[in-house]
Amino acid sequence: MIIVRTIAELQKKVAETKQQGKTVGFVPTMGYLHEGHLSLVNEAKNHDDFIVMSIFVNPLQFGPNEDFDRYPRDFERDERLAKSAKVDAIFYPDVKEMYPRELSSTITVHKGVNALCGKSRPGHFDGVATVVLKLFNIVQPTRAYFGMKDAQQVAVIENMVADFNLSVQVMKCATLREEDGLAKSSRNVYLSDEERSEAVQIYASLRQAISQIEAGERNPVMIKDQINDLLHSKTTGIVDYVEVLAYPSLNVIELIQGEIIIAIALKFSKARLIDNITVTV
Amino acid sequence: MIIVRTIAELQKKVAETKQQGKTVGFVPTMGYLHEGHLSLVNEAKNHDDFIVMSIFVNPLQFGPNEDFDRYPRDFERDERLAKSAKVDAIFYPDVKEMYPRELSSTITVHKGVNALCGKSRPGHFDGVATVVLKLFNIVQPTRAYFGMKDAQQVAVIENMVADFNLSVQVMKCATLREEDGLAKSSRNVYLSDEERSEAVQIYASLRQAISQIEAGERNPVMIKDQINDLLHSKTTGIVDYVEVLAYPSLNVIELIQGEIIIAIALKFSKARLIDNITVTV
Repeated sequence: MIIVRTIAELQKKVAETKQQGKTVGFVPTMGYLHEGHLSLVNEAKNHDDFIVMSIFVNPLQFGPNEDFDRYPRDFERDERLAKSAKVDAIFYPDVKEMYPRELSSTITVHKGVNALCGKSRPGHFDGVATVVLKLFNIVQPTRAYFGMKDAQQVAVIENMVADFNLSVQVMKCATLREEDGLAKSSRNVYLSDEERSEAVQIYASLRQAISQIEAGERNPVMIKDQINDLLHSKTTGIVDYVEVLAYPSLNVIELIQGEIIIAIALKFSKARLIDNITVTV
Repeated sequence: MIIVRTIAELQKKVAETKQQGKTVGFVPTMGYLHEGHLSLVNEAKNHDDFIVMSIFVNPLQFGPNEDFDRYPRDFERDERLAKSAKVDAIFYPDVKEMYPRELSSTITVHKGVNALCGKSRPGHFDGVATVVLKLFNIVQPTRAYFGMKDAQQVAVIENMVADFNLSVQVMKCATLREEDGLAKSSRNVYLSDEERSEAVQIYASLRQAISQIEAGERNPVMIKDQINDLLHSKTTGIVDYVEVLAYPSLNVIELIQGEIIIAIALKFSKARLIDNITVTV
């Protein structure tokens, strides 16, 4: 595994790799790797010959009152984990390499940002889209791998790829789950024992919603109401949102048809958990 | 020369061309071709093996009160001229092919848009940057050719290429001029005989400014004043703007140094003429 700090060096390496007829799989991250990232690498290795992982905490996607400086970083640990997962190249630029000057132009995301987690983070997805477009242009990947845990991010990127006729293939990877169905998250450790046992209801309520849709339910309000009822009655968490939206547009729908997403954010005392499920009707 | 109406077909053709080891030169236009466009093709043929010209009147760069519907179109004439200039492929998509749905994300240009012609056309350069990025991704050119007559557009695109780490090389092509120095423009025919003879003062004042800078003048205000004086005393035109700015940032400068642009817009009775010159000090 090589560690590359500059754009020019990475571009050279990728060009050489492609000249050998190899495909390039790309796993963009902000580092502080966990099982979810490594599962993306595993998926990438199923499809691509040469795996590039970027580790870059992108200041552009943090709001002025958010935690860019405090965002956890541990490059040595990341390096060890990436190596064990058989990443071929870590792209680890510093901020000056990615943003040598203030940008003259950026991506503005108009759709799918006033729903779910985007509501409370104005400009966040503009920063995500801008850095992902830069990274796509630098890495020139055949395929890029994103976890569906952050379905809104995946939607924004899928839309951008279509909008700008990018040639990269966006690979949506299933959320990793504990044996009882709870989505894996570094935040799960903040749950009390009682909350941990309640938290299974998040995925259980999503599964129940899918069953109802499979049985013919087409009213998103009915689905949301039933999820809300279940979470209220069976957990001590506070519902932040329950949404049933078109995917990947994240438009509000009046009838369940085509590809949709059901998404939940539930606040426990010390952790806000998110989960979602997509289904095509 | 082939005429290609779909993105998929163009991408296939470009991929084949590149596999043969050929470079791709790209000349984006809105059609209604004139000598300026054809000089870009000539320049492209000096560098590249396969020349793609796009002809697409981009609705995104027209304001709500601008003339998208009335913009002149004559594809048969364009086809004839492109063929005579030895273009290899015309990419001629319709609006539905380029924008099959409303865009979820667009480019927002933050810098260099509140100067020169951008002042009076809010959002214009966002539309230009967005379509040029799409076209770059579709055509995947080795080099793209732009005329310096529209220096602000070139600046916006040069900045975007740097911002997003695009691999295309932007080729800035000199403005075509009449023998007496007047920049060629389809609008020159609207000048009266008297105005036509006065109009040479636009380029003459730019040349005089360059001489003064070469002689040591570093104060942009002095340069602007002298150009204004010359245009006022020797023409009946009304000065729309005279600007001395950093290039390509188009930032206001207090001292002439580095790469700069001197740009003029002068209104005659029936034609508004623009011209500019760039110089590195």
